[in-house]
Amino acid sequence: MRSGPPRPPARLLKAIAPLILTGGILLIPRPDEVQAEGWTVFAIFAGTILALILRPLPLGAIALISLTATMLSQAVEPDVALGGFGNPTIWLIVCAFFIAKGFAVTGLGTRIALGFVRLLGRRSLGLGYGMALTDVVLAPATPSNTARAGGVLFPIVRSLSTLSGSEPDDGTRRRLGAYLTLSSFHVNAVTSAMFATAMAANPVIQQLAGDQGVSLSWAKWALAASVPGIVSLIVVPLLLYRVFPPGLRDTPEAPREATRRLAELGPVARAEKLMIATVVLLLLLWSLGDQVLGVSPTVSAFVGVCVLLIAGVLSWDDLLAERAAWDTLVWFAVLIMLAGQLQELGFIGWFSGQIASGVDGMSWQVAFVILTLVYFAAHYLFASNTAHVTAMYAAFLTTAIAVGAPPELAALVLAFESSLFASLTHYATGPAPVLFGAGYVTLGEWWRMGALIGAVNVAIWMVVGGAWFRLLGFW
Amino acid sequence: MRSGPPRPPARLLKAIAPLILTGGILLIPRPDEVQAEGWTVFAIFAGTILALILRPLPLGAIALISLTATMLSQAVEPDVALGGFGNPTIWLIVCAFFIAKGFAVTGLGTRIALGFVRLLGRRSLGLGYGMALTDVVLAPATPSNTARAGGVLFPIVRSLSTLSGSEPDDGTRRRLGAYLTLSSFHVNAVTSAMFATAMAANPVIQQLAGDQGVSLSWAKWALAASVPGIVSLIVVPLLLYRVFPPGLRDTPEAPREATRRLAELGPVARAEKLMIATVVLLLLLWSLGDQVLGVSPTVSAFVGVCVLLIAGVLSWDDLLAERAAWDTLVWFAVLIMLAGQLQELGFIGWFSGQIASGVDGMSWQVAFVILTLVYFAAHYLFASNTAHVTAMYAAFLTTAIAVGAPPELAALVLAFESSLFASLTHYATGPAPVLFGAGYVTLGEWWRMGALIGAVNVAIWMVVGGAWFRLLGFW
Repeated sequence: MRSGPPRPPARLLKAIAPLILTGGILLIPRPDEVQAEGWTVFAIFAGTILALILRPLPLGAIALISLTATMLSQAVEPDVALGGFGNPTIWLIVCAFFIAKGFAVTGLGTRIALGFVRLLGRRSLGLGYGMALTDVVLAPATPSNTARAGGVLFPIVRSLSTLSGSEPDDGTRRRLGAYLTLSSFHVNAVTSAMFATAMAANPVIQQLAGDQGVSLSWAKWALAASVPGIVSLIVVPLLLYRVFPPGLRDTPEAPREATRRLAELGPVARAEKLMIATVVLLLLLWSLGDQVLGVSPTVSAFVGVCVLLIAGVLSWDDLLAERAAWDTLVWFAVLIMLAGQLQELGFIGWFSGQIASGVDGMSWQVAFVILTLVYFAAHYLFASNTAHVTAMYAAFLTTAIAVGAPPELAALVLAFESSLFASLTHYATGPAPVLFGAGYVTLGEWWRMGALIGAVNVAIWMVVGGAWFRLLGFW
Repeated sequence: MRSGPPRPPARLLKAIAPLILTGGILLIPRPDEVQAEGWTVFAIFAGTILALILRPLPLGAIALISLTATMLSQAVEPDVALGGFGNPTIWLIVCAFFIAKGFAVTGLGTRIALGFVRLLGRRSLGLGYGMALTDVVLAPATPSNTARAGGVLFPIVRSLSTLSGSEPDDGTRRRLGAYLTLSSFHVNAVTSAMFATAMAANPVIQQLAGDQGVSLSWAKWALAASVPGIVSLIVVPLLLYRVFPPGLRDTPEAPREATRRLAELGPVARAEKLMIATVVLLLLLWSLGDQVLGVSPTVSAFVGVCVLLIAGVLSWDDLLAERAAWDTLVWFAVLIMLAGQLQELGFIGWFSGQIASGVDGMSWQVAFVILTLVYFAAHYLFASNTAHVTAMYAAFLTTAIAVGAPPELAALVLAFESSLFASLTHYATGPAPVLFGAGYVTLGEWWRMGALIGAVNVAIWMVVGGAWFRLLGFW
């Protein structure tokens, strides 16, 4: 028997504010270009985002309520609204949680983490760079940034943190876990921007730019991204180390302890070998799969989970008990559905049109900077890089070219931003919910650091990148 | 650290047999009418069903492997294969699990169960009839048999069993829980057949029969079903009581104990009142929603879950911890997807065609009995009444009329079977996974009793029903 929880006035206010926002937006006369249903979805979406920030209830409960409101308002049919639960990107994320569980139950995560600690662990900053190096090495061959950050790096971050006595829920999260989580997350946005094959939406961008007559080859992309990319990779872990410092800084005893514990662990066990084989298989499938074998990143991830289940490395009960996976399934599915409907029902198109008309008549330099900033900030409205790119890339590129920006410059800058804006929120991109879901970083920290690192990356890619693109002759 | 489980030869055989079945079917030259992908899906479906029976791994793991095989074989595109996870029927089931959890955490389930025990609990057979009476009273106004058996009756069965010291996993499951679970399940198939508004697929049947020129009004349906329905409602709980007896038979002390404990419980608590209000709201929405308010049973169920979350009766953690819901989500979504693809890719059409050509030239009575038996048994291939009806009802009705069966008789008998065949398996219909998932009944028991009760119901509705339909002038 249980009674409802106590309801302090603060909680009531937190619950009412999103309702007022949604109701207020519904009262504004909608623009003609937006369908009535699209305006309703926007009102619900805005209320949902406010509720996610104020947190009168856990994320999953808010998502369920938003989903129900969307269906009840008849803005979206139930089978479409529930369709988010069948989205392949979401199941890639769910599988990434399950695979990460394999690192935990076999103890392999601990072993890899100990290796890293032995190699780079004299300072926690060294660990941040160790993660960054791993990510950039994997990036050219891993077209799913979720697989990379969520499937490969996240379990190592998790193990490293636990090894250093940093857990999400016992007051030790800032000791190491919070720093490593955010550093890996923001580095992932940078590595995603660096190669045409490093993020799922990048090939979409190549296609859309090609439709506007701008050819972005793999080599041109990598060359253009190289200099600003390397600068960002150097700056991001260090900047976070200054403004969001881990409690643990100098750790001279860590490598010694790691060496001792690795000796204790002894030889690699059967389950660990199976786990290594699975991860190697996954990396092969993720790097070759889509183009060479026709196996999508999601299907590859399911193959990995099946191998772990069949080999007995993971039990079905391990998966059912992985609450974070089910939690993420629910709230990410609802946000992806809402974001998709915003586009489907004309809101995004109207929104892009407003922007384009706003910069009419300015010099191309000013207009282009405004366009890129708006394109970047608009990602607060999106739960996926791919959705944002699909919805807005072509419109913004067309507008930029129309106001006089050099086509190659415009195509590349918008392309890079399409990865970099993934820094902004905890729902911005595939790995975001995985890393946020681990619980090391609060929502407030996530958004504040997201805005800071996002701004710094934009500055680096505009100033350093701008000079480099000029040198390359793109403008 | 964990190593793989031991692998006795028996387990290896259980794992290999489904692979051999799938491989064997793939080697058979496919019929021209079935698309290559449809034959592949059939091979995987057959292997999956065998694996569900042999259980080399838990249901959910088998389902994930089947899903992966389906996507890897490229018979079904990933976004279609994963689409099962967005199926509204599945989310009605998931919500039913969550709502049932509300009965548990508030203690209301216990209170209702105690009331039943006080009223009818001198014998466990009385409890079986108590559940049957509840179901048939709710049936005309509850168009979702899942909502009725899964959402309303199942939590009461669960509480009654716990109260009588019958739990799924400590050796006491046959004491009461197993009997009440199966009795409620098979009674639900009967009540679903009794009213045009008692099961989601029944309106589909009215439509399909109308397309063949046979009008099945609500009143005609209820009148035709009344006599065989009442006979089945009397026979089913009693027959199960004989062939699948509960350990607890005479329970003279139960009503006294119930009275004592009800007094102990005291007045109804706030959370219980909220739970009652939610269930009343759900019954109203389920009975009026679809036709009067345009709110589907799934959306209504989501409303119920949201009310319980907002009122604080359920916490989000309660839902995440409800493993049975996530388990069911996975395996039922995969089976519904496979069944849907069997139809989509031409297998079901070819299968129906084979049957129709097989009865060519027989007397209509013989042909019709064969047709109805095949239609009934074919439900072993389906994970939903609606899917089966959509796929086969029109084809079988057309064939029956073509061989000379009286149209009204044929339309009604096939309509009733469309509910009665829900007895057959643990995936046959919405409530099946909910009740099976509770763990009181083994898979072997479920299938054996399913075949027995299915056969008895067919006999009742053919013999008693046949005489009654004759009296009514339908043939």
